[in-house]
Amino acid sequence: MRLSTRNQLAGTVTAINVGSVMTTVKVDVSGQEVTAAVTKEAVEELGLTVGSKVVALVKSTEVMLGVED
Amino acid sequence: MRLSTRNQLAGTVTAINVGSVMTTVKVDVSGQEVTAAVTKEAVEELGLTVGSKVVALVKSTEVMLGVED
Amino acid sequence: MRLSTRNQLAGTVTAINVGSVMTTVKVDVSGQEVTAAVTKEAVEELGLTVGSKVVALVKSTEVMLGVED
Amino acid sequence: MRLSTRNQLAGTVTAINVGSVMTTVKVDVSGQEVTAAVTKEAVEELGLTVGSKVVALVKSTEVMLGVED
Amino acid sequence: MRLSTRNQLAGTVTAINVGSVMTTVKVDVSGQEVTAAVTKEAVEELGLTVGSKVVALVKSTEVMLGVED
Amino acid sequence: MRLSTRNQLAGTVTAINVGSVMTTVKVDVSGQEVTAAVTKEAVEELGLTVGSKVVALVKSTEVMLGVED
Repeated sequence: MRLSTRNQLAGTVTAINVGSVMTTVKVDVSGQEVTAAVTKEAVEELGLTVGSKVVALVKSTEVMLGVED
Repeated sequence: MRLSTRNQLAGTVTAINVGSVMTTVKVDVSGQEVTAAVTKEAVEELGLTVGSKVVALVKSTEVMLGVED
Repeated sequence: MRLSTRNQLAGTVTAINVGSVMTTVKVDVSGQEVTAAVTKEAVEELGLTVGSKVVALVKSTEVMLGVED
Repeated sequence: MRLSTRNQLAGTVTAINVGSVMTTVKVDVSGQEVTAAVTKEAVEELGLTVGSKVVALVKSTEVMLGVED
Repeated sequence: MRLSTRNQLAGTVTAINVGSVMTTVKVDVSGQEVTAAVTKEAVEELGLTVGSKVVALVKSTEVMLGVED
Repeated sequence: MRLSTRNQLAGTVTAINVGSVMTTVKVDVSGQEVTAAVTKEAVEELGLTVGSKVVALVKSTEVMLGVED
């Protein structure tokens, strides 16, 4: 499926922290760590484990910008 | 300011597309392109130009995951 | 690509309102209208026109619930 | 209350999965399943149970679009 | 309509900046300024003008926290 | 760090509800209550406790508007 989502960052799962309903998944993206908070259901459905190849997807309207002082 | 925001990706602005109210900003993050859609007002206030060093900030609950078929 | 995104609603584009940077796209989903605000760039890249078959994707953390009084 | 929220999808709760802080609620919307991840507090306050009539609310900037290959 | 949305901040519109598709609306909330970026369509539909009494609605999963250094 | 985030609301933590992965934090902002749902990890990292001075940060595209009937 092609997506309108502008940000599609390829990476590898490095950690999964399973919660009662939500789960955080850490992804190494070119040496920078990206954290996704998705439903536990989704993680199970996608069969994610440490080492899984994933794409971290972020809609552009969800990206803020900071400038160091 | 230290932030709860899990995703703080350092990069460099590569393009700015100014709209009437919103503006898209492209950022090179370790070789991958991140697009932010923020208000025109914010871009002006931060004084962003191509080449500006920025941090792309994304709350973990805004990150989805995809697995290629 | 299989997605963590819980909400994947199949529908047909019924209207496209192109802005300077953002664009709204109306989608008929089983008789209910869904509006997406995405970047103009994305709409062009996906080649969307009225009548296009699309999937409206919404992360579960972005869905609120209301109860009529 | 009238809302700026473009997407207001009427439906019926089909499942509720209560977590420690978050809760997922499945809603049947014209035959398609919508999942909301909201706070446990909100579900209790709204008194939601399976069979409750609800409106699934999604801001247009949170809707992405996909096109099947 | 009662909402799952945890944040419902009463205020008064102080400025409206109309764009081609999106519009920013500034709201005075107990002396602090809140900015909403919503569709132009929504602003027209709600009949908002400077001085309008509104409620600024934010899902809890969209709120980040910062701590000054 | 200066931020593109339009909404930066100063307040004081009044309650913290720790979950397995997510945590809700209540903040008093000029007499109005703001609830943030952030990761448990972030709350620990920021060392938040009841009484902590924080800034509640919300991107403008995440703010909806309601008008009472």
